[in-house]
Amino acid sequence: MSDLTLLAEKLDAADELAPVRSRFVLGPASDDPADAEGIYLDGNSLGALPAHVPDRVADVVRRQWGELRIRSWDESGWWTAPERIGDRIAPLVGAAPGQIVVGDSTSVNVFKALVAAIRMADDDRDELLVDATTFPTDGYIAESAARLTGRALRAVTPTELPGALTGRTAAVLLNHVDYRTGRLHDLPALTAAIHAGGALAVWDLCHSAGALPVGLDEHGVDLAVGCTYKYLNGGPGSPAYLYVRHELQDRFDSPLPGWNSHADPFGMDPSYAPAPGALRGRVGTPDILSMLALEAALEVWDGVSLAAVRAKSLALTDFFLRCVSEYTEPGRLECVTPERHEERGSQIALRCADAGEIMKRLIARGVVGDFRHPDVLRFGFTPLYVGFRDVERAARVLGEVVA
Amino acid sequence: MSDLTLLAEKLDAADELAPVRSRFVLGPASDDPADAEGIYLDGNSLGALPAHVPDRVADVVRRQWGELRIRSWDESGWWTAPERIGDRIAPLVGAAPGQIVVGDSTSVNVFKALVAAIRMADDDRDELLVDATTFPTDGYIAESAARLTGRALRAVTPTELPGALTGRTAAVLLNHVDYRTGRLHDLPALTAAIHAGGALAVWDLCHSAGALPVGLDEHGVDLAVGCTYKYLNGGPGSPAYLYVRHELQDRFDSPLPGWNSHADPFGMDPSYAPAPGALRGRVGTPDILSMLALEAALEVWDGVSLAAVRAKSLALTDFFLRCVSEYTEPGRLECVTPERHEERGSQIALRCADAGEIMKRLIARGVVGDFRHPDVLRFGFTPLYVGFRDVERAARVLGEVVA
Repeated sequence: MSDLTLLAEKLDAADELAPVRSRFVLGPASDDPADAEGIYLDGNSLGALPAHVPDRVADVVRRQWGELRIRSWDESGWWTAPERIGDRIAPLVGAAPGQIVVGDSTSVNVFKALVAAIRMADDDRDELLVDATTFPTDGYIAESAARLTGRALRAVTPTELPGALTGRTAAVLLNHVDYRTGRLHDLPALTAAIHAGGALAVWDLCHSAGALPVGLDEHGVDLAVGCTYKYLNGGPGSPAYLYVRHELQDRFDSPLPGWNSHADPFGMDPSYAPAPGALRGRVGTPDILSMLALEAALEVWDGVSLAAVRAKSLALTDFFLRCVSEYTEPGRLECVTPERHEERGSQIALRCADAGEIMKRLIARGVVGDFRHPDVLRFGFTPLYVGFRDVERAARVLGEVVA
Repeated sequence: MSDLTLLAEKLDAADELAPVRSRFVLGPASDDPADAEGIYLDGNSLGALPAHVPDRVADVVRRQWGELRIRSWDESGWWTAPERIGDRIAPLVGAAPGQIVVGDSTSVNVFKALVAAIRMADDDRDELLVDATTFPTDGYIAESAARLTGRALRAVTPTELPGALTGRTAAVLLNHVDYRTGRLHDLPALTAAIHAGGALAVWDLCHSAGALPVGLDEHGVDLAVGCTYKYLNGGPGSPAYLYVRHELQDRFDSPLPGWNSHADPFGMDPSYAPAPGALRGRVGTPDILSMLALEAALEVWDGVSLAAVRAKSLALTDFFLRCVSEYTEPGRLECVTPERHEERGSQIALRCADAGEIMKRLIARGVVGDFRHPDVLRFGFTPLYVGFRDVERAARVLGEVVA
């Protein structure tokens, strides 16, 4: 056994989150150091299946839909699911209850958040800033929000802030973690800088929620959105969420004022009157199957400390970098994820010209990460179910594949 | 046995759609004429569960998500589900393939359709008309679309058309069937009138698709939206759909240009370039569990003729009115659904001052319809699984309850 194999075993033995792995459908960690089957390092794209979710979904389908049918809107709590599940996500992103609703896709929630933010700002603030490095959909939607509200849009990198802020800036949309490089941006400092510039801070938490503490309330974030199918393990395309800070809720003026956000949705009033609170972020009828699968999936967080998650995440990515450096010829792979812990999310991105081909061969060997055009290998480390032996083996197979 | 009971049996025996009932989880039709248990007349709100859907959903959860995980985006056809399922809905609404995508809620799709319609119209057409009798969310969303595009909004009843059209009218949003009264509007004539006025016709098919032929292509409808959880039985909050006529697709300029509608979504280009065709109606990552439950549910339509569905729907509603008139004191209930077949959808709405209380007592007796504020009893007749004995018994229980 190599020193790194022994070290991996020691780290796994000392890992307080190790027992959480059994809450997922992954099979047990193999004891065979040559076995790289099923090393899943793509939880930053689609989280693994929590073991109890299939039975819960079956109950929703067979009993709640099949037997109770329409009565389930009340009796099975369907109607209140968006805010109830929002409150379940809230502690994971550092939010008090009553500020998050679940529903729609991330893109749709970015649209709600940006148009609402523009409407909260003074009229002479006629410009929207968007993270130039963010996942593309945020930029596309920001462009639409700016166009529909007659604002200018300017793309800036997070490092250009606060210098890029002007007296014209209404709001800034930033991504907490860069989806390609895995760089973690300084949410507290950037939010404070945006506020100092008189603008609203809107954060996309897709790549941070569930991987590290976010602290929305503590840092005074104004609006935030995120998906639930990555580190929150809600299932493919599970509904996204929208956070609206308490103090801003009365001024939240949605561009998608569907009947679910009405103060009296069953009054069937032809005039719109918004519900109080976070409910204003609701739109149409919620997709119950996906939503209740997510609700069940969130139970894996019971008793899990986010501080432990963050500590393990950093230990996993540190260890991965060490193993890669040991097993791979120097210069073959360029790490584009920051070395500094303060600047690192829960993924490692390695650059090489033949990344697309390398990832295909890794997947064929059972090590599942993903490829991001044009030259990035991404490896996501979900602390709830990835162990140190997984990491050592994945790095070893990577070393063999690139050799 | 009363004459009506005998007649119901005869009608059931002659019903060519009767065998389709077994495709749903409803239990067999009872032979006990006194047994009103489980008469489900609320399929116009939430369709019943197709019997094969639970196993299909279980496979999506356990195997596609749990085992294949991220590979399912390709290998299980997740990525192409929105357009594939759109093509499965297409024949049910009279559309050729390539014009429908599934995803998001009806409200979100109304928003896409209206903003896109406004953008297709000449700039001097600065007014949007919306059906004053439509389900409220359509009006709320139309107001938002008008506000964001700087257009005026005017609510008109379908009967005020074509007189209400002016040279300023960009588009008209109408509901095919009035959700309260069950009145069916004349889609061919109204669409032609709207076109004659130089405007675009946008139809909401929530209460017609799956209950009667729609003929989108034949009648030259421009844009349409609909939900899938009523007569299409897709499950609670299953995703809605958007129809964009072939000839208009190149001009479809979405207000929600998420990355799923990009010409090269995995190119991760910071600039937006729309995909060709109906794909432009996609936004964010589709909610796969709800979407694939819907796909499975649509299989109940295999071999079912929409003409037979429409004929049975009218026979069911005719028979219900006859039974109600037989079993209920004259004047106790006012039918607000039109008598004429050309003006009737697949529901019957009866008005009485104590409708809320009556519906509670009906439900307690096993006859499930719904109540619409302030004074309407709604009964939906899904021809795929409602039989004539159900109808006779429901009317009998209604007569007893109102007496």
